[in-house]
Order: sequence, then C-alpha cells, then structure tokens
Amino acid sequence: MGETAQGEIAEHRAEEEEVEVEEEVEERSGGSQAASFSSTQSSHRLLAYSDALISIIATVMILPVAHTKLEDNEELKESVQLLLTTKICVYLMTFLIVTLAWAAHIRLFQVIVRIDDCLALLNLFCMMLITFLPYTFSLMATFPKNHLGILLFCACVMVIGLIQAVIVLYAFGRPILLSEHIQASENQSVYKQHILHVIVRVPLTCLLAAIVSFIFIQLSYVLLAFVIFLPYIFQALKWCRSKALGQAEEPPASILLYTYHPNEPLSKERVEAFSDGVYAIVATLLILDICEDNVPDPAVVKRQYDGSLIAALQDYGPEYLAYFGSFATVGLLWFVHHSLFLHVAKTTRLMGLLNTLSLAFVGGLPLAYQLTHGFPRNSRNELEAIQISCVIIFFAGINQLGIWVVALYSERETLHPCVRYGGHEHVFMLAKLALYPCVALATFFLTCILSKFSAPIFHLMEITVPFAFLVLRLLVRAGLALLRLVFCPERPDPRIVLEEEAEPFDVPVA
Amino acid sequence: MGETAQGEIAEHRAEEEEVEVEEEVEERSGGSQAASFSSTQSSHRLLAYSDALISIIATVMILPVAHTKLEDNEELKESVQLLLTTKICVYLMTFLIVTLAWAAHIRLFQVIVRIDDCLALLNLFCMMLITFLPYTFSLMATFPKNHLGILLFCACVMVIGLIQAVIVLYAFGRPILLSEHIQASENQSVYKQHILHVIVRVPLTCLLAAIVSFIFIQLSYVLLAFVIFLPYIFQALKWCRSKALGQAEEPPASILLYTYHPNEPLSKERVEAFSDGVYAIVATLLILDICEDNVPDPAVVKRQYDGSLIAALQDYGPEYLAYFGSFATVGLLWFVHHSLFLHVAKTTRLMGLLNTLSLAFVGGLPLAYQLTHGFPRNSRNELEAIQISCVIIFFAGINQLGIWVVALYSERETLHPCVRYGGHEHVFMLAKLALYPCVALATFFLTCILSKFSAPIFHLMEITVPFAFLVLRLLVRAGLALLRLVFCPERPDPRIVLEEEAEPFDVPVA
Repeated sequence: MGETAQGEIAEHRAEEEEVEVEEEVEERSGGSQAASFSSTQSSHRLLAYSDALISIIATVMILPVAHTKLEDNEELKESVQLLLTTKICVYLMTFLIVTLAWAAHIRLFQVIVRIDDCLALLNLFCMMLITFLPYTFSLMATFPKNHLGILLFCACVMVIGLIQAVIVLYAFGRPILLSEHIQASENQSVYKQHILHVIVRVPLTCLLAAIVSFIFIQLSYVLLAFVIFLPYIFQALKWCRSKALGQAEEPPASILLYTYHPNEPLSKERVEAFSDGVYAIVATLLILDICEDNVPDPAVVKRQYDGSLIAALQDYGPEYLAYFGSFATVGLLWFVHHSLFLHVAKTTRLMGLLNTLSLAFVGGLPLAYQLTHGFPRNSRNELEAIQISCVIIFFAGINQLGIWVVALYSERETLHPCVRYGGHEHVFMLAKLALYPCVALATFFLTCILSKFSAPIFHLMEITVPFAFLVLRLLVRAGLALLRLVFCPERPDPRIVLEEEAEPFDVPVA
Repeated sequence: MGETAQGEIAEHRAEEEEVEVEEEVEERSGGSQAASFSSTQSSHRLLAYSDALISIIATVMILPVAHTKLEDNEELKESVQLLLTTKICVYLMTFLIVTLAWAAHIRLFQVIVRIDDCLALLNLFCMMLITFLPYTFSLMATFPKNHLGILLFCACVMVIGLIQAVIVLYAFGRPILLSEHIQASENQSVYKQHILHVIVRVPLTCLLAAIVSFIFIQLSYVLLAFVIFLPYIFQALKWCRSKALGQAEEPPASILLYTYHPNEPLSKERVEAFSDGVYAIVATLLILDICEDNVPDPAVVKRQYDGSLIAALQDYGPEYLAYFGSFATVGLLWFVHHSLFLHVAKTTRLMGLLNTLSLAFVGGLPLAYQLTHGFPRNSRNELEAIQISCVIIFFAGINQLGIWVVALYSERETLHPCVRYGGHEHVFMLAKLALYPCVALATFFLTCILSKFSAPIFHLMEITVPFAFLVLRLLVRAGLALLRLVFCPERPDPRIVLEEEAEPFDVPVA
C-alpha cells in the first residue's frame, strides 16, 4: 500500500498544481480581455445559487400541507382525501412546474457557459419571477374559476420567457460567452434561431391562454397543460418507438441541445446541486417548525407543569422522534443518491426526470413522519400514517433505482466502469439502491399482517437501516460468498476474474 | 476580437479535455484501489450538502422573530426592545454558534480530503446533531435558570466532539483519506495528537459546564462562553500585537492548520457554498410565508369582497412589495459577494469572520422589509422600520467591503492581480462594494431630514439600485474620466499605464 499510496499522492499534487496554474492562466487571460469586453466570468457559482433558490421554491408548497392541522377525532382517511384534492396536488404541480423551469434554465446555461455582470443581474431577475410561480399556482388552485390566477401565472411565464430571450440575444452578441461547440460552429445564427424558437413558444402560448381565459377559462387550462407536456410526451413516444423498432441511431450529443429527447444531456453538476438543495431543505423542514413552535411558554410551564421543564417537553416527544426519523431517512436517501452519482459520468433528461420524481416523494416524507407520531397509539390513523410513510419511502427509493436502471441501458456513456454489468462495485451499488425500497416494502406488508405492532416495527426499521448501511459492504460480501457456496462451490472467487475482465472496459468516457 | 477569441476558445477546449482526462485517470485509479481499500471518494458533494444544511440551520432562528406579531397600536420601539432582548439575541447567538460549528467542520475536512461511506454516514449523524443545536439554544434562552437547556446543549456538543474525534481516528487509520500535506509528512502522529487535542478540548469543557450547572448555573454559562471565545480573542490579540510591533513573520500556511490564527486558510469553495445557502434561504424567506398565509379563503372572498379576488389580494399588496424588495436587495448583495469572491484567490479566517457578520445582517433583512410595509403611512413606526432596514443594509454591505479591505492587506496571496492596488478592476470593485453602504447611509440621513417622505425615498432607493448596478461600469468610467479632467487634464489615460505596470504582478498565486 505504502508505495502506491505515495505514488498517488505525488500524482495528485502534480495534478492539482497544474489545475491551479491553468486557472491562474484562465483568470489572467480573462482579466486582460476586460479592457475590450467587460469581464466575463465562470458561471459556476451563479448556477449553484440558482439551483439553491429553485430547490427551495420547489419544496416550499409542502409547508401548507404540513401545517394543515389534522383533528384527532376525525378519520385520517377523510383528512387525507381533503389534503389530496387540493394541497398535495398544488405541491406536486408546483414541484413539476418549478422543475420544468429549472430544466429550461439548465438548457439555457448549457449553451451559455460564461457570464458577465449583465447576465448575472438578468438571471437574478428571472429567479425572482420563478420564485413567485408557486404563489400564482396556489391562487389558480384555490380559485379555479377566477382568471386572475391564470393571468398572473401567464404574466410571470411571459416575462421569464422574455428575459431568457434577451439573455440568448445578448450572449449570441458576445460569442465568448457561448459553449465552445457553438462558438466553433459555422452557423451560429441557425442555433440562435432554433433556441429562440424553442424559448418563445412557451410565452406565446401563455399569451394565448391569457387571452382565452377571458372567454372560456377551461380552454386556457388545457392550453397550458398542452404547452407544458406536449414536447415531452411527443419525444417519449418517439423514443419508445425507436427503441421498440430497434432504430438505435442516436444523434451525437451536440445536436441534442434544445430538443426534448430523453437522451438530451443534462448537466450532472446541476442535477447534484439541485438534489442537494432539496434534500437539505426537506431534512430540516421539521426542525424549522420545532424551533418556532415547540419552545414552551415560561408562564405555561409554571402554571401547568409546576415549573418542571422536562414534563412540559415530554409532550413534544413525538415531534422530536419525527424529526430525527425524517432527518435520518432523508439523509440516508441523500447518501444513496450521492453514492449513485459518484459513479454516473453523464446525466440524461430521462434520468433527470426520474430524479425529480424521487425528489417529489422525498419532499412528502417529513409530513408523513409527522403524521406517524401525531396519533394515539394503535389507532387506525397511526397505522395508515405509517403505511403512507412506507409507500413514500418506497417510491423515493424505487425512482433512485430507476435512475440506475436507465443509466445501465447506455452504460458505456453514462456509468463509470466499476458499476457497469460485471464491474466489481455492481452488486454493492445494487444493494445500496435496493435497500430502502425492500425495507419499505417489507415494513408495509408486516404492518398489514401485524397491524397491532405497526409502530414498533416502524421504529425498528428506522433504527436498523442506518446500521445496515454501515455494514452493507460486509453484508454484500457475506451474501455473495453464501450464494457462491450454495450454487457453485468449486468455482474460484468470481470477483478476481471480474476485475481482470474489467480492464478492457476502462476506456475513458468520451 | 475574432482571432483572440478563437485562440481562447481553442485553449479553453484543450484545458477542459486535459481536466477530463485527469479526472478519468483519478477515477480509475480510485476504482482499482477499491479492492484493497473500500472505495474512497472525493468529499466535494458531502461538503456541499453539509454547507446547505448548516446555512439553513444558521438562518432558521430568524423565523420566530419574523413571526412575532407587532400590534399597530403599540409603539414599534417597545416591540423592538421586546424582540431585541430575546428573539434577536437568540437568532444572533444561534448564527454565531452554528457558524462556529461550521468553521470546525471546515477545519476537519481541510485535513481529511477524501471520504468513504463510513465517514459520510458519520458526518450525516454529526449534521443531525448540529441541526438540533438552535433548538437547545432557544430553550436555554427561554429558561435561563433551568439546567435542562444547558444539559441538552452540552450533550449535543459532546456527542458532536466525540464523532469528530472518531472521524479523525478513522481517517488517520487510512492515510489515503488525509490531505497530501499530512500524508507526506513524517510525523503524522504529531498532527493526530494536535488535532485530537483541539477537538477534545470543547466537549471536555462542556462536560465540566454540565456538571457545574447542577451546582451554580451562572458559572456554567461563563464556562461555555469562555471555551467558545477564548481561542479567538487570544489569537486576535496576538495578531494585533504582531501587526503593531511589525513582527510580520507569518508561519507557512500548512502549519496554520488547526490553530485559531486570523490568517489560517479557510476553504474558499466552502465559504462560497455556505454564503450561497444563506443568501438563497434569506431571499426566499418571505415567499415561504406568502405561499402559506396569503392565499385568501374562497368563503371569505365571497362574503367580504363580493367575490372580487383582486380586492382581496390588494390587502396583501404590502407583503408582495416587501417580498420583491427584500429579494432584490438580498439578490444584489449576493451579486456583490459573487463579484468579490471571483477575484479572491485564498480565504483566511478573518475574512470568513467578516463574511459571517455580513451574513448575520443579511438574515435580518426580510424581517426589516416586512416591517417597512407593515405600518400605516407616515407613522413613526414606518420611519423607524425604514431606518432599521437602512442600518441592516449598511452593516451587511460594510462587512463585505471589510472582507476586501482585509484581503488587500495581504493582496499578493489573497487577491487576483486585476483587483489589487493599481489593477485595472480595482476602482470598479470598490464601486461595487461601496454602492450599497453609501446608498443605505444616504437614505438613512435623507429619511432623518425629510421624515415625511421617508417611504417614497426608500422605494426610490429600492428601484434605482438594480439599475445602478446594471450601468455601474459606465458610471465608474465616467467618474474616473471626470476626476482626470478636473485634477490633471494633461496626463495620459492612467488605465493604459496601469495595465502595463500590472504585468509584473501577474505571478501565479502559490
């Protein structure tokens, strides 16, 4: 180990120094250009900030759901139905629309890779309007027959589209800001036309929807749904057909920009940043409430509990449990996501879609956990809350697994060698991704059978899963060894063979 | 332009390809090692996620402040005094303590630069306890004479310290996880001893404070304050003395690890990530409330407003204004921060401290803006709310300026050439950083003189500042040209001379 480690260290250091010098060169060349252009900058941090803003906004509509007080004496089913009809729908639709706006933002800044002050300010203005979208949307949901909500929504979308068009025009006026692919190409104006065409389509339809809303409001909702979903449905159908008929001639990635093709590349860095934002907000949602609501009033403590703070805090026990439970689950789902994306080399739009679905379920987790601890022991409500939690965990996990399955379909482009079929980390990754869905499913069925012990089963699950992750590598090795022992005891250890075989796969991902 | 641009493009592409190949190599070498070690990973995303969590937690205690209802009929001064005594103090102290925990986290992960699954899970557990700190702190503030709060707080800190010690022991057991500097050094065990010594100091004092709290509770508060602030005060005094006496022999950066020296390096990436998180949460704080509270009830609209949604929404006008105003201000302060850190090459602990102070003020902005619009026109309350807003903006901006001033003291290490004294972006950067403090100060004094027109003056400020940023470069050039014309009309354009002079400074930053 000593020598290889030392070698690696030296290599690392050399690499880092090179990168530093390169950065310095880049910075300086950027600086000396500042006299002719105004100074251009890497867009990295602007995008990180935008991702943080959008991820907060995407999850914000879960708060009205979480703060809806459920009465103990009424059945959970009724309350859930009440929630389902309005607030959960608003949450899911907001999540969808905000992530669509985010996807459009990614698309835009895959074309524009450097920014200057002017673009940064335009982007901030754009963000301000995007953060206002959830509110217009909840107005639309609360007053479906009033055209004010739809007008506000359309106005926001139109202004966002307008700003995006201005950004595109501005960037094509200063080609230094564009991605190298477009900078190098001969027909920049074709790109410009195509991009503007795609961007302008949405605000124009919104304008139409706004006008129609004065005459026949249902039609304008149809128009909006139409403009949002059509490109995706259309492209999904086309892709399914091409997969079914086997016409697998993929166009090169560069041509896929600004199409809605499922294989259109999606910046991996931004998918990670957005996911981090959502996981971070969701993990802390309950502590936000706890900090605000669960500090008892000194006067009340003195009157009701004889000044005993411990007795007063014991009432909040379920809230603390819910917080730690949901933090652990969200944190571990983040951990799985992190492990997966460490081995993903390229993200496609379809993987992004599955990721969004997974995140949408994750957003509902704190609420479900809060419900779990909010009802009297062994009540029907408690059982249902626990089962809902299991279902949410299952879908959050299964969509993560889906990302990997989709990645495996074109593994030579999207995955690093060690997690491909036959890679030495393949089984381990599968175990990591499958752990939560399997445990959630098992817990669900166990609570169906042993409904009396549903709460202990659920708590046992909460406690054992983190430890399972800690020793997962050992478990997987033991499992593999057991399988080998049972099915083919005379064959040599396959891992050694696999690693030797894996070498030819180690070509750099293009 | 064409040729230089094309040249740069080619250079860029070559650079990026190199980086890609390097990453690939690193990834592969990491992969092939996975058989002997368990797989090690870059810690980048773990740290980004931790930064997101900590930034949310640092700002969360502003929510109880923001949700304190101020009555119209009582004087703002009284309510502000009421707030100041408890909730704002809790907010500021929480912000301080959480950022101290964050600084310890940075310190730890500057030593440990690669992670594996086990470290990731330990870190998540550590995060869970850090997110619980604000709650224990607000218990302490609400019940200062009850030792439960202090016990909970000490328990959290002790467990956090224990986990950090475990992380250090684990990492020194697998040296591949450590930073190259320590990997290469002969006396790893000396480092280990030193780091453990620093880490264990805090939980041990907390243990003492917890024990003392049973006997004499005031003493335990003193102990806690002592352990938190002493290293900083001590180091600050030492640093001031060395500066005053001119003994400017700085030890090399590597020896500064795990000291509390103001020049101890602080990962610039993490300062940026933390700041982005705080700015993003603060910018959206008001929309969180708006989405939850400001959707009118359909029944109320029908009864009170004759079904006119517009009339119902007009009541919320001030809330919208407050939202857009605070979003714009926070967004522009982020923009200034972003511009500054683009030109910062290295961050020191002192710069980090000023950054934290700036962020603490930024956290109070949404609240101040909400107050601004929450009182009747031309009332004394409104004037005071506007003046408080100005003061907060001023301090947020002046601390940003402070970061730059501190950076200028050791500019050869901390700043990129173009913003150093005499660099061609120097004046422009000064203008950017000084714009908000100047405008805030001007608005403050104007509202003192013309107290009748305070609201229009404030709104005018809100509207003009974004445009001022858009045309700032032009303004600075015009200003410089004017100065030149007035003071020395016969000299040639100094910018050209400065750029030629600037060349020798362009040595790569070590």
